[in-house]
Amino acid sequence: MNKLAQKVFNDLEKVRHEKPLVHNITNYVVMNNTANALLAIGASPVMAHATEEVADMVNIASALAVNIGTLSRHWVDAMSVAMKVAQDRGVPIVFDPVGAGATPYRNETCRKLLQEVPPTVLRGNPSEIMAVAGALEIDYKNKDNDIKTKGVDSTVQSNSAVTAAKELAKFLGCVVSVSGETDYIVDEEKVNEVHNGHEMMPLITGLGCTATSLTAAFAGVCESPYDAALDAMIIMGIAGEISAEDSIGPGTMQLEFIDALYTIDYEQVSLRIRVNNP
Amino acid sequence: MNKLAQKVFNDLEKVRHEKPLVHNITNYVVMNNTANALLAIGASPVMAHATEEVADMVNIASALAVNIGTLSRHWVDAMSVAMKVAQDRGVPIVFDPVGAGATPYRNETCRKLLQEVPPTVLRGNPSEIMAVAGALEIDYKNKDNDIKTKGVDSTVQSNSAVTAAKELAKFLGCVVSVSGETDYIVDEEKVNEVHNGHEMMPLITGLGCTATSLTAAFAGVCESPYDAALDAMIIMGIAGEISAEDSIGPGTMQLEFIDALYTIDYEQVSLRIRVNNP
Amino acid sequence: MNKLAQKVFNDLEKVRHEKPLVHNITNYVVMNNTANALLAIGASPVMAHATEEVADMVNIASALAVNIGTLSRHWVDAMSVAMKVAQDRGVPIVFDPVGAGATPYRNETCRKLLQEVPPTVLRGNPSEIMAVAGALEIDYKNKDNDIKTKGVDSTVQSNSAVTAAKELAKFLGCVVSVSGETDYIVDEEKVNEVHNGHEMMPLITGLGCTATSLTAAFAGVCESPYDAALDAMIIMGIAGEISAEDSIGPGTMQLEFIDALYTIDYEQVSLRIRVNNP
Repeated sequence: MNKLAQKVFNDLEKVRHEKPLVHNITNYVVMNNTANALLAIGASPVMAHATEEVADMVNIASALAVNIGTLSRHWVDAMSVAMKVAQDRGVPIVFDPVGAGATPYRNETCRKLLQEVPPTVLRGNPSEIMAVAGALEIDYKNKDNDIKTKGVDSTVQSNSAVTAAKELAKFLGCVVSVSGETDYIVDEEKVNEVHNGHEMMPLITGLGCTATSLTAAFAGVCESPYDAALDAMIIMGIAGEISAEDSIGPGTMQLEFIDALYTIDYEQVSLRIRVNNP
Repeated sequence: MNKLAQKVFNDLEKVRHEKPLVHNITNYVVMNNTANALLAIGASPVMAHATEEVADMVNIASALAVNIGTLSRHWVDAMSVAMKVAQDRGVPIVFDPVGAGATPYRNETCRKLLQEVPPTVLRGNPSEIMAVAGALEIDYKNKDNDIKTKGVDSTVQSNSAVTAAKELAKFLGCVVSVSGETDYIVDEEKVNEVHNGHEMMPLITGLGCTATSLTAAFAGVCESPYDAALDAMIIMGIAGEISAEDSIGPGTMQLEFIDALYTIDYEQVSLRIRVNNP
Repeated sequence: MNKLAQKVFNDLEKVRHEKPLVHNITNYVVMNNTANALLAIGASPVMAHATEEVADMVNIASALAVNIGTLSRHWVDAMSVAMKVAQDRGVPIVFDPVGAGATPYRNETCRKLLQEVPPTVLRGNPSEIMAVAGALEIDYKNKDNDIKTKGVDSTVQSNSAVTAAKELAKFLGCVVSVSGETDYIVDEEKVNEVHNGHEMMPLITGLGCTATSLTAAFAGVCESPYDAALDAMIIMGIAGEISAEDSIGPGTMQLEFIDALYTIDYEQVSLRIRVNNP
């Protein structure tokens, strides 16, 4: 595990030194937190969504984070333009299908955008990942019969989500990061489980969106998108644990979390990291 | 008072256990705080404003909160669609006329939306409530002559607002929640005054908007919209008092307030509750 | 220096007592912080961006802050309308060219808006100020040959920015506030340097935008726009110093900063103020 801790910390130090510019087309709810989390980790955030400028912004960015949390037509148009330019220029794209499964419009938007340009990393919670698989008409359900009978709903759901994630990774040729109590980092060949994190994290709005943009920051400095996804979820989880220790509730924890991203050091990473199959 | 405290706390526990999905079409300034306040109280927030999806989102929601704080044409269109669907499906609507009275556009938007669909609860500060009454051409001024002469501006204003609120409650067939140093929960027949709260609360942006969305959360689990409005203002006020005690200024208080919503227990409610005519 | 400290504190007290209404057309990332900073300092914030209402809102405002951080077509239209009305009514305009230089769209928007209506105060970081000078085709580079050879990039850049600022002040007939480790308050005749501040401030998203809106608040109560720009940067810098002392990282500092704006007193101003050429 110490080897992995060293690798994760080295990547964090790369973010801190290279200060990758992360272009975010994200939702209104989380923009402030996302920008502060990126700054705290050492990256340089920019938010821009006008079709008139997204191509130019992607051109100077190290990574692109696209998040459909509060989508509307003009924003989707801009996401489409930005993702095409990013693909052309080799800029890594991290895509967050917020609320996929909640409305047909979200599903259709995911289908449209992901069929046009496959992302480098797809990051979502279990139900979002399954909804994206459904939107892309990927038949993952027949492939996990042995898993579906195993137990309680949440387990089933996570297992189903991992099955869906594997099929999505194959279909899109991307890494899929499934976040939850356990995070699963999935590509065509392997799955790593990240067990870091804290139960109060889901009570802070937009931490999933933060995970997406931190993944983009790591993707801006790492050769391997898989490593970027793994780094981000480990750092998120550890910062969550540290911040929960000094917090009474999710209010104060929100800012302790930003402080933890800013101060996190090698000792904390090496003592706390909990990854299966590293 | 203990009976009321028990009722309020039971409703809070209902929110915590049922986790009602509250669909918010609200303003850019407060989205983050609103989402965090809803999560802290145990509800499940979603923000969505595209006309392409608001009907589908209302369909799965327990309550709809509409807030015109940073309105523009497409958003007003979406509010109109969402309110009609909510009315059809019996989903309670809490409407917040932010800034009514400041510009003709805000007054016209209130008139248009409220004439199309009366809300379940209308929540605003005294001047907003009076502006809405004016926008709907409700003649409340002739009805409080004895009140208008009573004293200082703020008193007059609150009394005028209560008079306006009563007329609005009759005209729209809804509950009206007038917030200020004293909150007035008004329907056609009765008025309750909530005296909880703290003078630093108006220095935190968007606490009124939070009150609106918490009212929606309670409306999602309570039979009675009147009780929902009363619950929300009592819990807001008590959380404000608790958070002010440990805060130097409105900055730290902002997060202590979220923590207080998360940790508030029966003892705090029963010891602090201050309601007239309960 | 005590005379300046007294002047700055008197202006702060004016803001606290007159509570100027500051109309902000600003970006999605910072709206919440901006509103809270304005409330903390005693001003009254309003955010409104619909072309249907910006003229009416400017009419009741003491100052207008325009910030292009997350610009798009309809927002730029609204900025144009609002700035014209502000000019007609003598309402001071503070303009923040966020991200000028990053994309042609931002440069063109700055050129269009500033050519239509010169602002009262232009506030940006060194590269933004130089980008605005470039967008307006102001040839400032030939005028600082002796400076450009002096040393490290940042020095050159600040010096170049001050040269650009002087030319912009002449061309637009406005005050230019260049923020950075040292802030430069520039008009046609003079430059003051503000050395207050803390190195952690750039790690909090939107503090530049906050500076813009606080400048607007001071411009709403001061006769002299130059004094308003100077007041705002001194108060920002001192609040930054105070808040950094009790913070572990930029997360907690974000709220300590709001508290500091709320509690700042004459003693703190007089002990900490560091201005060259006052």
